Amino acid sequence: MSSDDRLNELRGQVDVINMQLLDLLNQRARVVSEIGKIQAATGGGFYDPAREAQMLQALEMANNGPFSNDAIKSIYKEIFRASMALEENQAKAKLKVQRRSEVERTVITMPDGVTTLGSGDFKIIAGPCAIESFEQMDETAAALAQRGVKFLRGMAYKPRTSPYEFQGLGEEGLKIARNVADKYGQFIVSEIMDKSQLQMMYDYVDVFWVGARNMQNAYLLKALGQQNKPVILKHSFGATMEEFLYAAEYIVASGNPNVMLIERGIRTFEKWTRASLDIGAVAALKLETHLPIIIDISHSAGRRDIAIPMAKAAKAVGVEGMMVEVHPNPPVAMSDSKQQLYIDQFHALMDALGQ
Amino acid sequence: MSSDDRLNELRGQVDVINMQLLDLLNQRARVVSEIGKIQAATGGGFYDPAREAQMLQALEMANNGPFSNDAIKSIYKEIFRASMALEENQAKAKLKVQRRSEVERTVITMPDGVTTLGSGDFKIIAGPCAIESFEQMDETAAALAQRGVKFLRGMAYKPRTSPYEFQGLGEEGLKIARNVADKYGQFIVSEIMDKSQLQMMYDYVDVFWVGARNMQNAYLLKALGQQNKPVILKHSFGATMEEFLYAAEYIVASGNPNVMLIERGIRTFEKWTRASLDIGAVAALKLETHLPIIIDISHSAGRRDIAIPMAKAAKAVGVEGMMVEVHPNPPVAMSDSKQQLYIDQFHALMDALGQ
Amino acid sequence: MSSDDRLNELRGQVDVINMQLLDLLNQRARVVSEIGKIQAATGGGFYDPAREAQMLQALEMANNGPFSNDAIKSIYKEIFRASMALEENQAKAKLKVQRRSEVERTVITMPDGVTTLGSGDFKIIAGPCAIESFEQMDETAAALAQRGVKFLRGMAYKPRTSPYEFQGLGEEGLKIARNVADKYGQFIVSEIMDKSQLQMMYDYVDVFWVGARNMQNAYLLKALGQQNKPVILKHSFGATMEEFLYAAEYIVASGNPNVMLIERGIRTFEKWTRASLDIGAVAALKLETHLPIIIDISHSAGRRDIAIPMAKAAKAVGVEGMMVEVHPNPPVAMSDSKQQLYIDQFHALMDALGQ
Amino acid sequence: MSSDDRLNELRGQVDVINMQLLDLLNQRARVVSEIGKIQAATGGGFYDPAREAQMLQALEMANNGPFSNDAIKSIYKEIFRASMALEENQAKAKLKVQRRSEVERTVITMPDGVTTLGSGDFKIIAGPCAIESFEQMDETAAALAQRGVKFLRGMAYKPRTSPYEFQGLGEEGLKIARNVADKYGQFIVSEIMDKSQLQMMYDYVDVFWVGARNMQNAYLLKALGQQNKPVILKHSFGATMEEFLYAAEYIVASGNPNVMLIERGIRTFEKWTRASLDIGAVAALKLETHLPIIIDISHSAGRRDIAIPMAKAAKAVGVEGMMVEVHPNPPVAMSDSKQQLYIDQFHALMDALGQ
Repeated sequence: MSSDDRLNELRGQVDVINMQLLDLLNQRARVVSEIGKIQAATGGGFYDPAREAQMLQALEMANNGPFSNDAIKSIYKEIFRASMALEENQAKAKLKVQRRSEVERTVITMPDGVTTLGSGDFKIIAGPCAIESFEQMDETAAALAQRGVKFLRGMAYKPRTSPYEFQGLGEEGLKIARNVADKYGQFIVSEIMDKSQLQMMYDYVDVFWVGARNMQNAYLLKALGQQNKPVILKHSFGATMEEFLYAAEYIVASGNPNVMLIERGIRTFEKWTRASLDIGAVAALKLETHLPIIIDISHSAGRRDIAIPMAKAAKAVGVEGMMVEVHPNPPVAMSDSKQQLYIDQFHALMDALGQ
Repeated sequence: MSSDDRLNELRGQVDVINMQLLDLLNQRARVVSEIGKIQAATGGGFYDPAREAQMLQALEMANNGPFSNDAIKSIYKEIFRASMALEENQAKAKLKVQRRSEVERTVITMPDGVTTLGSGDFKIIAGPCAIESFEQMDETAAALAQRGVKFLRGMAYKPRTSPYEFQGLGEEGLKIARNVADKYGQFIVSEIMDKSQLQMMYDYVDVFWVGARNMQNAYLLKALGQQNKPVILKHSFGATMEEFLYAAEYIVASGNPNVMLIERGIRTFEKWTRASLDIGAVAALKLETHLPIIIDISHSAGRRDIAIPMAKAAKAVGVEGMMVEVHPNPPVAMSDSKQQLYIDQFHALMDALGQ
Repeated sequence: MSSDDRLNELRGQVDVINMQLLDLLNQRARVVSEIGKIQAATGGGFYDPAREAQMLQALEMANNGPFSNDAIKSIYKEIFRASMALEENQAKAKLKVQRRSEVERTVITMPDGVTTLGSGDFKIIAGPCAIESFEQMDETAAALAQRGVKFLRGMAYKPRTSPYEFQGLGEEGLKIARNVADKYGQFIVSEIMDKSQLQMMYDYVDVFWVGARNMQNAYLLKALGQQNKPVILKHSFGATMEEFLYAAEYIVASGNPNVMLIERGIRTFEKWTRASLDIGAVAALKLETHLPIIIDISHSAGRRDIAIPMAKAAKAVGVEGMMVEVHPNPPVAMSDSKQQLYIDQFHALMDALGQ
Repeated sequence: MSSDDRLNELRGQVDVINMQLLDLLNQRARVVSEIGKIQAATGGGFYDPAREAQMLQALEMANNGPFSNDAIKSIYKEIFRASMALEENQAKAKLKVQRRSEVERTVITMPDGVTTLGSGDFKIIAGPCAIESFEQMDETAAALAQRGVKFLRGMAYKPRTSPYEFQGLGEEGLKIARNVADKYGQFIVSEIMDKSQLQMMYDYVDVFWVGARNMQNAYLLKALGQQNKPVILKHSFGATMEEFLYAAEYIVASGNPNVMLIERGIRTFEKWTRASLDIGAVAALKLETHLPIIIDISHSAGRRDIAIPMAKAAKAVGVEGMMVEVHPNPPVAMSDSKQQLYIDQFHALMDALGQ
C-alpha cells in the first residue's frame, strides 16, 4: 500500500474515533448535568476540586499512554471547564453582566424619568476633577448646561497617591455640588471611597462613582449593590477587562442592575499618554456585556491636546458615552491640571462631536 | 581669533553665568525657605498652585527668548520641585517611610517580646492560602513549627476576582487559625478587606495583612494606622514602587510605624510567571525605605517548581524575609492550588535555604 | 509686621529673583547658541557630556546650599536639555519626521501618479497575511478591486516566532503577488526582513514593509532610506511611540521621505486583544509627525469579531488609513487565522465604513 | 432513592465514561502517531490546519449537545495540541534548546581550551558599554584581569534609538578591543547588528553578541547559526521568555550549539528600574533550557547603585554568569552613563560576590 493510501486509511480511523469521542463526551455532559441539577437543588456549589483531583488520579493510574499523564490532564481540564460552564449556564446563564443577545442593553433612567444612559445616544459626563469652590462648580455647570450635559462630575473625596496631597473638600464639597446641580437640573456623579460613607453621601449624589483604586474593593461593591442609585465602576489601571466585568458582577449580583463601566486605560510602558486606552479591548468589552460603557478621555490621555480625536474615536467605537474633565482654570486646579479642558476647549469639543 | 579660541572664550562666559545662576538659585531657595517656615507656622501647606501659575505667567510675559516659554517653564518646574523638596525636608524630612541613613531600619517586635521582623535575620511567613479546616491548619502549622517558623498565614477573607468563588470561612476561620497558632506558639497573619472588620479581627490576628487589591484603599490604610498591631502591606500588581511607598506612608503617617512591605511583582506580558517580580526594583526599594521588606515567592511565581531558586534570590538580595504558601494537599486547595507547596517541598525549601 | 505682610514681602523678593534668573538663563542661552553655531560650522556634535560633567562638578564644588547638589544638578539637567533643544532646533529644526506646523503632511504618490496616501482621504491596505497561492491572492484581490482598494498586502517572507513555522513562499510568492496586482491595477505591499533582500524584492514590490520585529534594525532602515520606493514602518510591540518616530527618522534621514507609520499596538497584560492599541497615543503621534499613519486593525485585535468598531474608531481618530487582513478561507490560513476576515466580512466592513 | 444515592450512582457513571474516554483518546493518539511517522518519512510537517478545520467541521455537524460546538472545539483543540506534542516529541524531542533532563547543560569552551561558560561556576562578562578609546579599554581590561575576568565586552557598533546619537567606532573600535584583549589574554564579546558584518567582525571578536533590538532578526540569527563562534543572545525587552527560547532555536537549529542567553528584563510601567528583571521567569527559563543563562545587571537596572544586591540575587538564582558594565569614568561615557560602574565599584562588587 502506498504511503498516501495508508495515510488515508489512518485518517479514516481518526474520523471514526472522533465521532465516538464526541458521543462519549456528550454522554458525560448529560450525566454531569444531572449531577448539577441535584447539587443546585440541595444548595451545593458546582465546583468540587476534591472530586476532580480524585478523577484525575484514577485516570493517571489507568493511563498507559501514548498520551502522557500531563496530556490527559490538560484534555480533562478542558472537559471539566466545559462541564462547569454547562452547569453554570443552566443555573444562571453565565454572569449577570454578560450579554445574552446582540441587542440586549441595560438602560439606566435617572430620577427625572427622562434622562437615560445606555439607550443609544452618546452621553457626556463632565466637570472638574475635584470640587474646589462654588464658583468653580457653578461656572463649569453653566457651560455644561449650555450644551445640554446632564451629568456633572466632581469629587469631594479624592483618592490620592500621597497622604499629603489634597484629599477633597468632603461633605462641604458635596453640598456645593448638590446646590449647583439643582440650579442647572443636573445629576451629581461623585466618588465614594469606603462603604462607611454610603449613608451620608446618599443624600447628595445621584450616581456613585467607584474609582480605579477601589475597583476590586469587594465590600464597597457589595454595599453599592444593596442600594438603588446607579453606580459607575472605573476600570483599575492594573486589571484586565475580564476582572473589570467580574467586579461589576459583584454589584449586580448584590441586587443593583444599574451599573455603568468607565474605561480609562491600563498601565503600560508608553509615556505619551497617562494610560493606554486599548480601543480594541473596549470593542471586545461591548460584545461581552450589556452594561453601558463610558470612555474617560481625560484620565486615559492625561493631557488635553488630544481630547477631540479621542472623543471622536470613543463615539465611533460605539460606546454609550464619554467622560471629560472641564475646569474654569486648569493650571490652578488642585489635581490633574494637565488634562482638564478649559471651558472654551469644552465647547470646541462639543462642536467637533456635533453634540 | 580662531574658532577654538572663540569657543574657549564663550565657554568661559558660560562658566561665569553658571556661578551667577547658582548664586541666584540659592538666594531664591533661602527666601522660599523662609516663606515655608511662615506657612508651616500658620498651618498652611507648601503647595500653592495658584501662586506657581501666577509666577509662570509673569515669566512668560517677560520672556524675550532665545529660550522658548516652554523651556523656561520646564526649568522653573524643576526649580519649584527643588524648592518644594527643600521645604518638605525641613518640615518633616521627606516621607516617614523613607530612609534617612544607610543603617536605619524598622524592627518589629511581636507580643512575645522575642520574635522580631526586620532585625537582620531572614524570616519566613508561611501557611496555606486560605484557612479551610482545623486539620489543614494544624498539619501545616506543625510542619512550620518543626522549622521554627513563627508567622502562620491563613486567610479567612479572600478577595476573589469572581463573586462566585470561595470567599473564605470568615470568623469561623479566624477561630481555627487562632487555636492552631496558640497551640504552636505562632503568630497569625491574616487579611483584612474593609475597615469595618477591624474590631472583630483584632481579637484573632497578630498581624493585619492588606491585600494587593486594597493597597490604595485609603480608608483601610488610615484605620490600620490608628491601631497598634503590625501591618503587612502588599504591593498591588498595578502599582509602581513609588506608589507602594506612598501607600505605606498612609499607615505610618496615621500613627502606626510597624509596617512591613510585601513584594509580589507586577503585571506584565510575560506568561511563565503569574507576576513579574522585578528584583532590581526590590533592591531599589530597600535603598529607599527603612521598613522591612518581604518577598512573596508564591503569588509572584504562581507555580511551585521554582520556589527554591526564587527563595535563594530573595535571601541574597538582602530583604528581611519571604512569604511562601504551604498546604497539606495543594491540588484540592480552594484557591491558588498551583503555587502552594506540599509539606515535603516546604522542608526541602528550608533545607535549601539553610534555615 | 504681620506674617501676611512678611509673606508678601518675601514673595516680592522671589518675583525679583525670578526676573533676574530669567535674564541670566536667556543670557546663557545666547552664549550657548553661539557655541552651537561654531560647532556646527566645524562639524562637531552638540552633545558634549564631558563638558557637562565638568560644569556640574564646578557647580557642586561652589554650592553652599540651601539647595542640595542633587537639586542643583536636576535644575541644570533641565537647563542643559533646554539648551540642547535650542541648538538642535537651530541646526535642523528637530527631527525630520516631526511636524513643524499643524497643516504639514507627507503625501505619498504611487507610480500611477494618481493613487496617494496621506492626502486626506482614508485609505485601505488589505489582503491575506501571507501569500499562499495564486488562487488565494486572486480571489482576495478581486474582492478588494470591487471596493476600489489599491494596496494589496501579502507577505512572501514571514518573520515567525518559531523556526519550524511556515516562513513564506519567498520569491515564488512575490511573483504571484506581482501578477495578481498587475491584473487588478493594485500596488504590492510586502515585508522585507533583511537588507540583503532589497535588490531582488525591488522588482516585485511597490511598497516595502518593515515588520514589528525589525523596527529597530538600523541597517535595514538605512538601506530603505537609500532607495526610492515608499516604506511602511510597523510599530514594534515593545517600543514606545517616541522610539517609533526615531526609527522612522533613520529612514528619512537616510534620504527617503516616503515613510508611513503603521500602528499595531503594544504588549500589555490585557488578554482580550493580541496587542493594546492605545488610541490616545495614536492621536498624540498624529500631533507629533507629518508622516501618514495607518492603523492595523488585524494584528492589534488578533480577532476578527471587533473589526467594524475598530475600523470606525481608526477612521474617527483622524489617521490616513487602515490595514486589514482578508483571506478567502481564514480557518486554513497558514498564519494568523483568527484575525483574518472572510471576504464577505470585508465587504460588510467597507459598507460599515461607507468606503 | 435519596439524592445522595443518586449522586453516587451518577458519579459512578461518570467514572465509567472517563475510562472509556481515556481508552479512546489513547487509541486516537496511536493512530495519529502512526500518521506522524509517515509524514516525517515523506518530509511533511505535522501541522495541518486544513485537516484540523475539516475535522472540526465534521464534529460540529454531528454534535447534538448538550455540549455546545464551542465546548467541543475547545476540548478538541486540547486533543490536537496533545497530539501535536506527541508527534513532535517523537520526531525531534521538542526544541533543541530545551532541556531533556535535569542535569543536561551546554558547556561552551573558548579557544584557549580552558575557559568555559556553563560548566557550573559563575562567570563575569564585563567592560564598558561602548569602545571609546584604547586608554579606556586598557584601563578597564587591566582591572578585569586583576579579578580573573576573561570576557571583555565592548561595542564597536551601537544600536541607538536616534540616528543622531553616537553609533560606535566601528572596525577601528574592534581593532582596539582585539589589541587590548590580546594584551590581557581575554576574549572579546561584541555586538553584531547585521549579517553583512559577519565576515569582517569574525577576525576580531571571540563571541558574537545579538542585541535586544535584533533578538528576532531571523536572517542574522541564521547567519550566526552557520558559523562556529559562540553567540550571546539578548532578551528583547518586548518579548516573552518563550519567544526568547524560540529565537535561540533559530541559531541552534542552523547548526551552532554554542548559544548563551542574556537576560536583561522587560518593559513595564515601573520606573525605578530601566527594565523589570523578572527573577521568577529567569528561574523558569533555567528549568526549560540547557543553554547557559547570564543576567545583565546593568541594562536591567539602568543605575549603578543596586549592582551589588542584583549581582547577589543573580548568583543565588543559579544562572551561569552575569554581565556588568564597567568604565573608567562613567559620567563622560558616550552611552548608558548612569549604569556603568566605576572601577573601584567593580572591585567592591567582586569582593561582595566573593569572586
